[in-house]
Amino acid sequence: MAVNLPELLPLHPITGIKVGTACAQIKQQDKDDLTLFELPPQSTCAAVFTRNAFCAAPVTIAKQHLAIARPRFLLINSGNANAGTGERGLNDALSCCEAVAQLTGCAVNEVLPFSTGVIGAPLPVDKIRTAAPIALAALDAQGWKKAAHAIMTTDTAPKGDSIQAAIDNYTVTVTGITKGAGMIKPDMATMLAFIATDAAITTPVLQACLTQAMDESFHRITIDGDTSTNDACVLVATGASSSPLIDSTSHAGFSLLVNAISHVCKQLAQKIVRDAEGATKFMSISVEQGTSQQECLDVAYTIAHSPLVKTAFFASDANWGRILAAVGRAGVKNLDINAVQIYLGEVCIVENGGVAESYTEEKGLQVMREPEILVRVLLGRGDSQETVFTCDFSYDYVRINAEYRT
Amino acid sequence: MAVNLPELLPLHPITGIKVGTACAQIKQQDKDDLTLFELPPQSTCAAVFTRNAFCAAPVTIAKQHLAIARPRFLLINSGNANAGTGERGLNDALSCCEAVAQLTGCAVNEVLPFSTGVIGAPLPVDKIRTAAPIALAALDAQGWKKAAHAIMTTDTAPKGDSIQAAIDNYTVTVTGITKGAGMIKPDMATMLAFIATDAAITTPVLQACLTQAMDESFHRITIDGDTSTNDACVLVATGASSSPLIDSTSHAGFSLLVNAISHVCKQLAQKIVRDAEGATKFMSISVEQGTSQQECLDVAYTIAHSPLVKTAFFASDANWGRILAAVGRAGVKNLDINAVQIYLGEVCIVENGGVAESYTEEKGLQVMREPEILVRVLLGRGDSQETVFTCDFSYDYVRINAEYRT
Repeated sequence: MAVNLPELLPLHPITGIKVGTACAQIKQQDKDDLTLFELPPQSTCAAVFTRNAFCAAPVTIAKQHLAIARPRFLLINSGNANAGTGERGLNDALSCCEAVAQLTGCAVNEVLPFSTGVIGAPLPVDKIRTAAPIALAALDAQGWKKAAHAIMTTDTAPKGDSIQAAIDNYTVTVTGITKGAGMIKPDMATMLAFIATDAAITTPVLQACLTQAMDESFHRITIDGDTSTNDACVLVATGASSSPLIDSTSHAGFSLLVNAISHVCKQLAQKIVRDAEGATKFMSISVEQGTSQQECLDVAYTIAHSPLVKTAFFASDANWGRILAAVGRAGVKNLDINAVQIYLGEVCIVENGGVAESYTEEKGLQVMREPEILVRVLLGRGDSQETVFTCDFSYDYVRINAEYRT
Repeated sequence: MAVNLPELLPLHPITGIKVGTACAQIKQQDKDDLTLFELPPQSTCAAVFTRNAFCAAPVTIAKQHLAIARPRFLLINSGNANAGTGERGLNDALSCCEAVAQLTGCAVNEVLPFSTGVIGAPLPVDKIRTAAPIALAALDAQGWKKAAHAIMTTDTAPKGDSIQAAIDNYTVTVTGITKGAGMIKPDMATMLAFIATDAAITTPVLQACLTQAMDESFHRITIDGDTSTNDACVLVATGASSSPLIDSTSHAGFSLLVNAISHVCKQLAQKIVRDAEGATKFMSISVEQGTSQQECLDVAYTIAHSPLVKTAFFASDANWGRILAAVGRAGVKNLDINAVQIYLGEVCIVENGGVAESYTEEKGLQVMREPEILVRVLLGRGDSQETVFTCDFSYDYVRINAEYRT
């Protein structure tokens, strides 16, 4: 049950990029699970990957390939993460890249592999090699929507976003798809996201652009505090819009493009939270008046990760004591609890070290009944601010994760 | 449903200490919820309290009183935490101490108040003042077991432990009771625990003794990562055993007493985990071969707090990939994943960066079906070791915490 997750609207194609999908029967017999992106030769590409030390084999290979060549193809499978698979996993990921190279005539290191699904099972390479020609034959500029479906694991619905913006009188398009659902607390990137634009931009500047957009989107969401082994976010720029080349972060077009990409990334990231495993509420945790961004993030994530806070939200219980307790244990040095104010939506719940005088259970309940809730914490000690997006903790989270492999 | 929680056996009384309980009807109408400890005048007393910045009113008052006087009475109520209650909460806690002082003729600051239960509701002081004389009249050296019942909140069973040890040919007794259940990740102490001994020991040495015992017990358990606002652990020494006064940590009796107190604390702490909200499994997470104790603790707590690991244990699913992913995101610098080994009980599940060659699902399942499971992580980089105790994450955890206030 997703929280206000909008239906996937048509996505603008990105000139020069084609997307094809196929059913390799990796985990399910009747759902496309293999996706192939073809990128035009002049494209630049930026990416961020998980910081998990046990990163998956495809993450290792994708990083290596990205360092030595411009990618021509992205090959993504769902249903199997190819993580925790040791030396064999690396060979398997490479073998899938080879299959694409043989079919298309590109170099092996021009293919980036991505996997998502269960950890630790060997990748069914033969199935992927068999399905690769089908995905290749299906390549289509309009293929984004099918790909949004094919990369899903426990997601209940496909997720994508698309926007057009003007740069120097040229219309630039940004389109992205993503998948999420669980094991989500990005630490460099979150799960799989593929975003493309027809803007023209050099590789280092594109990477700067992605880094900035991530800090306002994928780096600000958490489902359960678990960082996946497979997280990857890829941003491709084809230059096909004929807009002027953005070759530095001080170029006038840079901030315009960052805004457009940030917008798409925020939409995608929030859609991941809306469709989190078992989610029934979408919570924005805004921490303000901190002495540093890190301090605000520490408080926001402590609230967002607290199982007691998350279960209270699931119950629509305005149990502000649990939020107060989370703020109190977030490790903020010399916190003056009498200066702290906490709001649920517009309702002040905590001030002067305890429950607000104006607070009534009825007021709290009114906010808690909503599917989208803003928690605001004013620390009363500085000017920094951060917002993190998360969801509640339900029976279904336990059910989904207790049953995932069985 | 508690995990192998043994029935509460008779507890040795501690000469000079009397315990009385009464029903103040704070939350339930038919259960004792008020406990009074009377301590002999010559007793020494050590305590550790929560590090949560939003500490409860009784914690603040108990700390103040402990700093200026030797306690003669401990007054404990369950059903209401008197936390997040601001200035009023402080007055309420003091008012309860005053009631005991008036009834007994002791000074107000010779009474330490403790509260546990729901956060944020005003303490029903009148009910407590009314019931205090009943608890006083019930004072009895044999009262420990009734007190173990009276301090319970969502605990399903009372928790206590008692041991006798020889110090210099004198028999010394250590007896303790505790309550837990949820919001448990001690950060200085965990929930409420009251421990007493008839050993003779000076106050600073007693505090050293408690600190050492805590690091092997209450500081090594976690239910949900949430640190309560009310955590307190009190250790009283009456000296009534006539054993020689322990006046320094180099005294021969010190380590013997620490061992005895550690034993009781470990039993109490593990009983809290066994009776954790919704627990169906008791997990020991042992991290070995680290470069520092902190590194081992970081890895152990990352595993112990992972909702994905906890739900997999609930499902008896040997989903070692989730354990591996937790190790990988624990923030260990320059971790060589090929040197890491992970065991479920005796079964090696991870080595050489992936699933162990000798591993089979059947072997994993055999361990996972047990109610008590040892997870061993060998980091392969040093000599440090730490063990943390935790439980799984079940439907019942969600149910209990979604319904707690309603």
